[in-house]
This record gives sequence, structure tokens and C-alpha cells, in this order.
Amino acid sequence: MHFQLAFIGFGNVARAFAQMMAEHQPALELEYGVRWRTIAIATANHGCITSPAGIDLLQAAECVERGGNLTELPGARAVSDTLAVITNCDADVLFETTPLNPSDGQPATTYIRTALERGFHVVTANKGPIAFAYADLKARAVDCGACFRFEGTVMDGAPVFNLVESCLPGVQILGFTGVLNSTTNLILTGMEAGRSFEESLDEARRLGIAESNADFDIDGWDAAVKAAALANVLMNAGTHPSDVIRDGIRNIKVEDIDEASRASMAIRLLARGRRTRDGVSLTVAPERVELNSAIGCVQGTSNVLLLETDLMGDIALYEYHPGIKQTAYALLSDFCSIIREVKKRR
Amino acid sequence: MHFQLAFIGFGNVARAFAQMMAEHQPALELEYGVRWRTIAIATANHGCITSPAGIDLLQAAECVERGGNLTELPGARAVSDTLAVITNCDADVLFETTPLNPSDGQPATTYIRTALERGFHVVTANKGPIAFAYADLKARAVDCGACFRFEGTVMDGAPVFNLVESCLPGVQILGFTGVLNSTTNLILTGMEAGRSFEESLDEARRLGIAESNADFDIDGWDAAVKAAALANVLMNAGTHPSDVIRDGIRNIKVEDIDEASRASMAIRLLARGRRTRDGVSLTVAPERVELNSAIGCVQGTSNVLLLETDLMGDIALYEYHPGIKQTAYALLSDFCSIIREVKKRR
Repeated sequence: MHFQLAFIGFGNVARAFAQMMAEHQPALELEYGVRWRTIAIATANHGCITSPAGIDLLQAAECVERGGNLTELPGARAVSDTLAVITNCDADVLFETTPLNPSDGQPATTYIRTALERGFHVVTANKGPIAFAYADLKARAVDCGACFRFEGTVMDGAPVFNLVESCLPGVQILGFTGVLNSTTNLILTGMEAGRSFEESLDEARRLGIAESNADFDIDGWDAAVKAAALANVLMNAGTHPSDVIRDGIRNIKVEDIDEASRASMAIRLLARGRRTRDGVSLTVAPERVELNSAIGCVQGTSNVLLLETDLMGDIALYEYHPGIKQTAYALLSDFCSIIREVKKRR
Repeated sequence: MHFQLAFIGFGNVARAFAQMMAEHQPALELEYGVRWRTIAIATANHGCITSPAGIDLLQAAECVERGGNLTELPGARAVSDTLAVITNCDADVLFETTPLNPSDGQPATTYIRTALERGFHVVTANKGPIAFAYADLKARAVDCGACFRFEGTVMDGAPVFNLVESCLPGVQILGFTGVLNSTTNLILTGMEAGRSFEESLDEARRLGIAESNADFDIDGWDAAVKAAALANVLMNAGTHPSDVIRDGIRNIKVEDIDEASRASMAIRLLARGRRTRDGVSLTVAPERVELNSAIGCVQGTSNVLLLETDLMGDIALYEYHPGIKQTAYALLSDFCSIIREVKKRR
């Protein structure tokens, strides 16, 4: 089995994935009898190329990291822009990892739609398209016989979507409660440990998990986009991040945390989804929870998602201290899902 | 697609599953295009029967619950014993839910092996065969082209084995830490709340989770059997419950709990597995853990399993307040896995 791969976006996550693929090539070849070749990479600042003879991913990563242009690579053909790459290459699997556009999920949604319509299987780590256009993209994938995978969009490579799809057959998700944003949880638990809001935010920046403008995290937008993505996939909600009733942690003070702490409580930014008579209601807000509970004990950058189900009661999935490697693993996991599906169809 | 079902053991779990199957028949038929008929049931105290024309599972459950004999059911043919049922019926899927024999996993292992050799797919909720004979049974299943599923053997229907198999492709499990025994956790957290060991044990008996002789739980045998099952399946350990270095909670005193509590710690009965140079080391022992942690916060009958992985860091799965329904769901989940696998092979 041979796959031609294309990369749309080649930032930290895609490059960590390239490294992981190189290391695990022998194991994947042994387990699945699969080989691959990268035939296209599109970036915003380092050029867009195709190369039917194949691109060395580690060489491409090195080029980007030293600030070069991908057109310098041997055999590379320059292409005008990302859409031209998608329409001009013959990929089997396309990895979309462009940055999130929180206002409408574009242009990533268009990239993915175009790729699916060309019959490419698509893997994305970008939550925008799932939060804004999941139902449409899923329908395109089905119509075009393409696989569409997006495990990395919520809780990195921790298997959230795959867990429900593969391991909870027949189960209906009635609701969820999650601590899904690492920056705000690092700030809140930092304040519990006696640091100020600003000191904790600086730590998040040092760790590389918060942008210099962290409003998107602090005001709950990131959690709202993830809540919408979860609701769309797990509860067929057909919703949108702007449907989420949203409050951030900007107004949480050390005194609030201390007061909660004296009552053995903690403040956590919770993303909640719940089935209602009309559909699904979604909220993101700081809430007081028991410190000694599965939600309250989540420290630092760790995440948790609690699922309420009809047949299996409540279960929760924890992810400890996620980093780039865990998001890169999401892409690997999705690639393996596609390999398995393609084998099944043959 | 049509399946003939056989039940070996027809206790609380199997009867709860029968109820769940009856309720979800329309949904399963819609989703998978599958129908089924029960053609055999074997019990220790309520007779063994076959009935090619089909047994009404709810009628069978009612018969057992009022202390009747299954041979009273319309169309039932009496069979001498359980093995005779397995060798004389033409089942597609066999559900094995006989009680655990903690000394060697028999006779369940023989029942399962015989069924696999007849080409039946097998679902078991009995951890003995997985802890004592997994490698052999798995090899038989592969040789005979049969599916062998056992999600209910550890943490009820919470997807432990399926999570690793389906959702963590390419990942190696380096170790695990679990709170896997509900009775001992109910006792320990009861003691934290000010009750005595005996009072808490009585509560476990009232809830129906502890036997009148609870030594098997208290001395860590149940957790050891589960640790061996996890190591055999997730880490290919080829191990045995007697290989587990085991200590129970019999000697834990209220003073120990109070002393831990003053240091913001909790005592939990931890089952641990870890890869070593020679294989896998397994322990079950009460340990002090931080109260405010994913392990320490597990209260009452709830369970948790933390997995250490090479590619995905640490993740943990929680199951809240499991009951019979969750174990019954394990059988449903395994049945769905078999349906999917059979569809894939066609």
C-alpha cells in the first residue's frame, strides 16, 4: 500500500509529525505494510511546492527552521499558493495544519472542502473547520468516498472523537464537561499556588502554549471553539462557536481563588454541552468545583473531558501535560485510522 | 446479517445484558442491519438448554429470577451440562459470564477454548481466562478465525482494551497505574469520611459489590487478577496473577488514613504494571498518593486507569460509580465489535 502525502501548513505540529513519521516508518511499514512519499507542501511564509519525485520531510523541516524557502529543495516546483497546491497535486492524504481563524474557520475550511472534493483523505489539527463547518465537510467526505479525521482538534492526540466512534458503539452522548484550555488552567492553578494572574500568564507564554495576545484563551474563545467542535461531532449539534454562551477568566481575582480554596473548592474554566429539547446548549464559564474531584484536580496544562452517556454512565478522559508531541501524535493516529479504513475497503 | 447466540452463565450481568439487548434491538438493527436469536443457555443452578427455534431472553430471565428451571421454557431441550451445550449448539457468538475462579480461571477457560475451536466468536466478562490463559486463547481465536472480546473484564464497560487497540495505534504501553477494585476503594474512602473498616465493608455488601466473603477483594486478589489481565493484553506480558507482588488493605487503620489526610494525601489500593528489561513487573499494594490528583480523587466505587505511553504521554480513563448496567454494556460493546469485524470480513 502506497500513499502520496501533501502538507498544508508546515509549522511546529506538522514538523514534529514529520519527525515522528521518520522514526516510526519501520514500525508502520511492518504493521500495516504501508509506504508513503510526500509530494507537496504549502506554507504561508516559506513557499509552496510540489515534487512528484518526493520531498524529504526532514530536509523540508530543516529548511523552514532556518528561515529558508521550500523552493530551494532538490526537485521542488514552485506553486503560486495553497489552493493551487491542492488543485495541482495528486495526493492520497492531505494534512491540514494551518493556524486557526477563530472568526469563521477560513481559509482552512475551503482547503479541506477542496481536498475532499478531489477525493483526498484529509487529516486536520485545526479546530476551526470542525467548529464552523463539520456537517458540511462530513457530508462532502461521505459523498466523495474520502476519510476525514480530526482527532487533534480537541485535547491533542488524546482519543476523544475516536473513543466515542470506536469504543462506545450504540451509546448516546447526553452531555459533556471539560477543562479544555491549557493557558487558562495554568493561570488558575498558578493563582492557587500563590502566583498572580500576570505571572501565571507569563509562564504560559514561556511554555509556548499562550500567544503574546492571549485574549483568545483568557476570554474563553478557544474553549468555545472546542465546545462547538465536540457538540458538532459527538452530539450532531450543527452548532457554531457564536452559539456558545461564553465567559472567560479575566475577572477572576486571587481573592476568589482563595475563598474557593477555603471551602475545598477550585475555580476551573468549564466547557459544558448538554442535550436539550431543542438541540444542544453550550456554555464556557469559570465555575467553582470540588477541589478533590476528577475535574477539580486538573492541574496546570492538563486537560480532562467528562462524558455523560445513556448506556455507560459517566466516564472521563485525562490528558497529562500535553505538548507538541501529543498533537503530532494526533496526526499519526489519524493517518493510521485512514490506513485501516483503506485496507478495510479493499 | 443474522447471529445465533449462546449464553454460558446467566447471572445478573447476562440478564442485565438481555434487557439492554431487548431495549436496543431496533437501534442495532437500524445501525448494523443485524438480527439475532438465542439458541442456548447454560447455568449452574437453573438447567442447561438448547432451542434451535429460539429462546425468549426476557422469559428466560424471569424464569431464573423466580428460581425456576430453564427446561420449563417452551421449545427447550434439556442438555446435560455446560460443555455439552457448547459442543451441541450451533452458535455464532457465545457470551461467557460464569463466576471467576481465582485459582486457575477454570472451567471458564476450557469453555472459551472449546467455543473458539468450534469457530464461535466469544465474548467474556470473566477476567480469569484473560489473567491465566490470554496468549493461548488469543492464538486459538486467530487460528480459528474467531473474534475474542473481553472489554468487561477490567473496569466494566469503560473502554480500556478497546481504547488501546482502536484509538492508540502505533503506541507502546510503558506502564499503568490503576484503582481497579471498587470494594477496597469504598472501604478506604469510607474510612476517610469517618466510618470504620467494618462499617464501610458492610456498605459494600449492601451495594452488592462485595461478596459475604470479601477476602478476595480486601487482600488484593481481585486487583491482582485485573493487573495480570491488563499486562497480558496491553503489554504482551504472558503473566499470571501469582506473578503479581500483592498486598491488600487488611492492615490499614483509621490512624493511617488520618495521618495521610493531614499531609493532603490519601491511601489507595494501586495496581501497577511496568515494563522492565526482563518483561513486566506487577504489584498491587496500598500506597499514599496526593489527595488532589487524578488517582487520589477517586471516590467510592469509582475506578481509574492511568496509562503511560511512548508517543502520547500519560492519559487516564475514569469510570464513575459503575454498576451492573456498565458491565452489561461491556457485552453489548463487544457484540458490536464482533458485528463490525464480521461486516469487514465480508
